[in-house]
Amino acid sequence: MADLSTCPPLTRESVEAAYTLVKPFVHRTPVLTSQTLDTIASTPQTNGAAKPSIHLFFKCENQQKIGAFKARGAFHAIQRLFSEVGKEEVQRRGVITHSSGNHAQALAFAAKTFGVPAHIVMPSISTPSKVEGTKSHGANVVFSGSTSQEREVVAAAVIKETNAIFVPPYNHPDILLGQGTASLEFETQVAETANATLDAVLTPLGGGGLLSGTATFFAPTSTRVFGTEPSFQGGDDGRRGLEQGQRIESVETLTIADGLRTPVGPIPWEIIADKKKVAGLYSVTEDEIKAAMKLVLERMKVVIEPSSAVPLAVVLYNEDFRRLVEEEQKGQTWNIGIIFSGGNTTMEAIAELFKAAS
Amino acid sequence: MADLSTCPPLTRESVEAAYTLVKPFVHRTPVLTSQTLDTIASTPQTNGAAKPSIHLFFKCENQQKIGAFKARGAFHAIQRLFSEVGKEEVQRRGVITHSSGNHAQALAFAAKTFGVPAHIVMPSISTPSKVEGTKSHGANVVFSGSTSQEREVVAAAVIKETNAIFVPPYNHPDILLGQGTASLEFETQVAETANATLDAVLTPLGGGGLLSGTATFFAPTSTRVFGTEPSFQGGDDGRRGLEQGQRIESVETLTIADGLRTPVGPIPWEIIADKKKVAGLYSVTEDEIKAAMKLVLERMKVVIEPSSAVPLAVVLYNEDFRRLVEEEQKGQTWNIGIIFSGGNTTMEAIAELFKAAS
Repeated sequence: MADLSTCPPLTRESVEAAYTLVKPFVHRTPVLTSQTLDTIASTPQTNGAAKPSIHLFFKCENQQKIGAFKARGAFHAIQRLFSEVGKEEVQRRGVITHSSGNHAQALAFAAKTFGVPAHIVMPSISTPSKVEGTKSHGANVVFSGSTSQEREVVAAAVIKETNAIFVPPYNHPDILLGQGTASLEFETQVAETANATLDAVLTPLGGGGLLSGTATFFAPTSTRVFGTEPSFQGGDDGRRGLEQGQRIESVETLTIADGLRTPVGPIPWEIIADKKKVAGLYSVTEDEIKAAMKLVLERMKVVIEPSSAVPLAVVLYNEDFRRLVEEEQKGQTWNIGIIFSGGNTTMEAIAELFKAAS
Repeated sequence: MADLSTCPPLTRESVEAAYTLVKPFVHRTPVLTSQTLDTIASTPQTNGAAKPSIHLFFKCENQQKIGAFKARGAFHAIQRLFSEVGKEEVQRRGVITHSSGNHAQALAFAAKTFGVPAHIVMPSISTPSKVEGTKSHGANVVFSGSTSQEREVVAAAVIKETNAIFVPPYNHPDILLGQGTASLEFETQVAETANATLDAVLTPLGGGGLLSGTATFFAPTSTRVFGTEPSFQGGDDGRRGLEQGQRIESVETLTIADGLRTPVGPIPWEIIADKKKVAGLYSVTEDEIKAAMKLVLERMKVVIEPSSAVPLAVVLYNEDFRRLVEEEQKGQTWNIGIIFSGGNTTMEAIAELFKAAS
């Protein structure tokens, strides 16, 4: 990746600069609203529970290229490499990552767009559809064992052979500035369509690229930014890290929110741990994530992956968050923005989640 | 319902008149496109198969009020009753239908909007969620046995007691003219967003309200209209009726396209059997419907019910239809419009459809 010392500062202006680079290559994804979900969100869960007044806006990055916001970071990172290293050199050396998720697809797609070879290290146990998906973007898929150590060994071998440039999924300024561009559109679209300002924005928190990019963009504004995590098997490593006063470096959870199984990276952490930038982290249970996902698919008719349901689950079911909204809104309705981070799931995965008496 | 002798003629102008009535009460649903589905549709299924060139547009009535186009017909029918019978009398007598599907929800919702009592006769074995959904629109749910004869007996008893006015799901000019208003928007939106004209429009065919309304609207234009059906257990009663030269009056199929289990009604049939209005009827298998539904949910990230996947299944998998497009398009790409008729399904129903090795 571009050398850290030459990276743009982590500011709103840098997100705006990133947007001029990625705009020609990404969708300006739609922003949706839902009266039904507003009503549910504004109804107390039980007698005596918080009674916030909430108007929701949903930024549909599930309809982004490759089905997730990750396209933004990938397009930004590669173009930043061009200006740092030179386009021809990047096209000669290629790029590489080890991921089996949306970042791999995004990097493969962005690389193909610019005529850059992409090497994607994937565990040999990856589902065939993911392997095919990555290959369909023209990437060179290299198989490895499934631990992160095994992946890194294989990636190192490919780098030694090809001199390919490593593009990490979240732990880099160019990635998080790219992810922040979703918020730039979101703010504009809410102003255009509803003549409104967002009082709060919630994103999922996994490695932290999306949350830290979002927080960077909104930092100088009145919009509060919150991160949301699955609590299952310690998946709320961000929240626990804040409590302990230091980043938790490893986490092993099999939460259904499979995009959020990773620990927060050190660069995003610097932003996320800054109270002036991220107002709080909240977590929800697996059942709450499923319930929110069910509402989105059945009521909004929109397909999201489980990770994308986590922010809505916090708004609907996390009583601490709901109490905070009620207290801070002082009688006004809050406009709450939620980023639907991705929509890459399958009918079979949905069937597995919701089969029988779920 | 409004007396047939006083109904507007079945013309494009009458659809336009219907639109002025329903427009304040329905969503102008979005029109989507998908490069991925265009590519799939324009690729031969096998060596030597038809190779049409297709650009698809999708009219998202799954995002209509109550989740289906049926809201249009219901809002039109009730307002027509107001002008025929008088608003106060309709509000006093109420409306009634026997249906457990989208028409029941639509009628209940439209009636509630105008302060009209609605009686909905539903089989006592209806799923609790459907009963609750109908009650949530303020309707009076009356239970019956599950055969259509049993339902009619109960409906007759309610009518005798309340003098409520029967509003049929599809077999009435006011209903089909209301359903036609989706096409009016569709034509306008395709012109606005893509500066294009639709060469063909495909709709699902059950009772025939949507197809006959669509055909009525496009009749004076160059846009060809096609109907699409499930072939399972004789669900393609429209297609078979055309072959036999007469409407098939009863059909018993348990196709997954549960909105299309009914025979075509006599009034829609007059339009559908008119070659100048409906250019052809095509049918697909259950597996083809599931495959099309999977593509829409996974690639477009849009939730539709199985009935809504039938037109896309015809475009992708019915070789007769694909051959026709290839022959008639004379080297030009065809702009094909598909009406996603509804999105009322549940996660549990999707789980049942796609569980295990499906």
